[in-house]
Amino acid sequence: MPKVEPFDAVDVLRAKRNGQRLSTEQIGWIVDAYARGRVADEQMSALLMAIWLNGMSREETRDLTLAIVASGERMSFADLGKPTTDKHSTGGVGDKITLPLTPLVASFGVAVPQLSGRGLGHTGGTLDKLESIPGWRADLSTEDIVAQLRDVGGVVAAAGSGLAPADKKLYALRDTTATVDAIPLMASSIMSKKIAEGTGALVLDVKFGSGAFLTDLADARELARTMVELGEDAGVATSALLTNMNVPLGRAIGNANEVAESVAVLEGGGPADVRELTLALAREMLALAGRPDEDVAAALDDGRALATWRRMVRAQGGDPDAALPTAREHEVVRADRDGVLVEQRALPFGIAAWRLGAGRARKEDPVQHAAGVELHVKPGEAVRAGQPLFTLSADEAARIPRALESLAGAWRIGDAGDEVQGGGPLIAERVGR
Amino acid sequence: MPKVEPFDAVDVLRAKRNGQRLSTEQIGWIVDAYARGRVADEQMSALLMAIWLNGMSREETRDLTLAIVASGERMSFADLGKPTTDKHSTGGVGDKITLPLTPLVASFGVAVPQLSGRGLGHTGGTLDKLESIPGWRADLSTEDIVAQLRDVGGVVAAAGSGLAPADKKLYALRDTTATVDAIPLMASSIMSKKIAEGTGALVLDVKFGSGAFLTDLADARELARTMVELGEDAGVATSALLTNMNVPLGRAIGNANEVAESVAVLEGGGPADVRELTLALAREMLALAGRPDEDVAAALDDGRALATWRRMVRAQGGDPDAALPTAREHEVVRADRDGVLVEQRALPFGIAAWRLGAGRARKEDPVQHAAGVELHVKPGEAVRAGQPLFTLSADEAARIPRALESLAGAWRIGDAGDEVQGGGPLIAERVGR
Repeated sequence: MPKVEPFDAVDVLRAKRNGQRLSTEQIGWIVDAYARGRVADEQMSALLMAIWLNGMSREETRDLTLAIVASGERMSFADLGKPTTDKHSTGGVGDKITLPLTPLVASFGVAVPQLSGRGLGHTGGTLDKLESIPGWRADLSTEDIVAQLRDVGGVVAAAGSGLAPADKKLYALRDTTATVDAIPLMASSIMSKKIAEGTGALVLDVKFGSGAFLTDLADARELARTMVELGEDAGVATSALLTNMNVPLGRAIGNANEVAESVAVLEGGGPADVRELTLALAREMLALAGRPDEDVAAALDDGRALATWRRMVRAQGGDPDAALPTAREHEVVRADRDGVLVEQRALPFGIAAWRLGAGRARKEDPVQHAAGVELHVKPGEAVRAGQPLFTLSADEAARIPRALESLAGAWRIGDAGDEVQGGGPLIAERVGR
Repeated sequence: MPKVEPFDAVDVLRAKRNGQRLSTEQIGWIVDAYARGRVADEQMSALLMAIWLNGMSREETRDLTLAIVASGERMSFADLGKPTTDKHSTGGVGDKITLPLTPLVASFGVAVPQLSGRGLGHTGGTLDKLESIPGWRADLSTEDIVAQLRDVGGVVAAAGSGLAPADKKLYALRDTTATVDAIPLMASSIMSKKIAEGTGALVLDVKFGSGAFLTDLADARELARTMVELGEDAGVATSALLTNMNVPLGRAIGNANEVAESVAVLEGGGPADVRELTLALAREMLALAGRPDEDVAAALDDGRALATWRRMVRAQGGDPDAALPTAREHEVVRADRDGVLVEQRALPFGIAAWRLGAGRARKEDPVQHAAGVELHVKPGEAVRAGQPLFTLSADEAARIPRALESLAGAWRIGDAGDEVQGGGPLIAERVGR
């Protein structure tokens, strides 16, 4: 006998459409019924549009998040015997912070279960970057993940399909119905996966600026606040940093070149902004895990974080000493005048790296690990005419002209004293207790 | 080779979601692409929800209507040699006006092409009512319709599936996604079918009140204004009457009993409200067809309208002298005190008739022609204790208790001088030039 449904989807849609709050029972039912195929795609998409336009209260957003969590398995690291702490970034150009951050935090004896999805679009994905290391593999069983957290402390792996499956179905629908960028929907999508993952603490790196999903600081703050509340409501100690994504992070945009830059940071060097953000997020993660006073900079400078990195890479089949892939084709773009680099816009550089082959247009496409952009000059630095500004790298020469097209107007050389566009502090605010 | 689409559905959705106006080209494309299956149901439903919440300008509503018209055939009565004029009602309880109105107007030598859909829900359908006449059939070819308009002048028939097919697809989607009651969507749905039908003039009977689709007079006025504009923009002379649907129209609610009441009106009798609305709509229809000064009451009183009715029924295979079906089961509800009937709410009486078998729950269900409600007393009339108030009729006794349930609190006997609920003039306003 078919199950008798306790609600009618049309009534739920009408309530949200009319600006009423949905009950815990209504939200729990509609997410479950959608996963069971008893609520149709066209009904859910109409509800998503009504949510986009009418919003959701804190309670509704929490109920939605927990309903998505309840659609699948929930992991637990309670038997691990050490605190767990994780980080999630909303995505930015050149954002490789997970790579140095995970071993850095794990080197303090805290477990870091960094379960990620695959990259799509211009921001790239952490797993894609790590897969440029020969032999490294992202697909681990739950047992492998737990064992690695116990033995090594850090793991970066593909999130299993059993975690929050309703989110996958909802995300695909949002993508085709112009309902991606609603804060309750973004927040519940991110947090449902992290709550299902079972981490005890979570730090959110919420990007704002021209290269971020949310360009306005106010929107980023609202998203951060919503996610911190969701984490607290679900028993996950959560905080967020709001960080500037007007310019690319570091000097490398791609996959293999971002791994190399991450290793440089783990060796105590690397670009100042990558090191700064890595240290700030590490302090947050450790503080939430009950270790607020650790000297994280020392762990980068004395080789402890690097040693953990090497053990993490080996545990997943990778060779930390293997040469990274290199590209066949290169194009160096040079300064046409003396002056100061006053603009370097993240989004066009991200699109250029994507067009060079570093990202994928469709889920099933491969990425080209050696493709990407190397920035030789960062905003605020002086240049001389003829000096290299950046280098584009690709496996196929034909990709370079289309990447160059996307960079038209993406940088500008001005005079000493001109204001640097998209500047301001890298870490604008902190949200959380 | 697949057709290259000039727009991306997500861009169109995002524009409407953000409160922007859609262009003629965008609207034309998305309706056509939806009909072709290149825009998915979930995308169209998200757009419909965005339209529900953000509205549409006059231009957008016109473009939507014309795009729906363009999805199918367009009839023309240009060769008929006489003006055409039609009426559409937004639906009410006991609304049988099409039945006396069509032959009344046709008796003045004007053609009335009354093409209708099937009833669904508590309001019943004109074709269902007429099908209680033995032999009468609703499905005519276009050639039959034209011949009957030429020879008899009036025709009430099923609208062919070739007229505005996109409306059918959109309506089914709106029904499951809580997007039925948006004025631009209601207006474009109604007017696309009437414009495709090819009538030269159109009078709209827009109901307001507790038994109508739109309860507020202001909403009904807005819908009427929108439809009159759409008609004018498409070259159809259009006006609207806003009419009170707080109480049932006439004394019969059902199918066969509404035919009998209509015949009484055509014989110069019948309930005062049915006669009043029939005459008012006939005057409007004739005025729009260039005949403003006809004595419509005389045509009811002297048998001309009745003679046209009999010819109409015969032309479609019906016998105007045949006995109408009668029900097996009856339940008389009587007054429990002396007083005045001060309330008789249309919606519960409509639901009661529907539960008795006069309407259908699903498109494929049959209707029971003899089922329905007979109102012996109308609001404002005095009653004595024990006097019959109304009679419920059904083919199956089991239907009566559920019908009675829906009538709890649906009427009230008060004292002389008490205010009659839902009163006011039957015809509240006129919209049009």
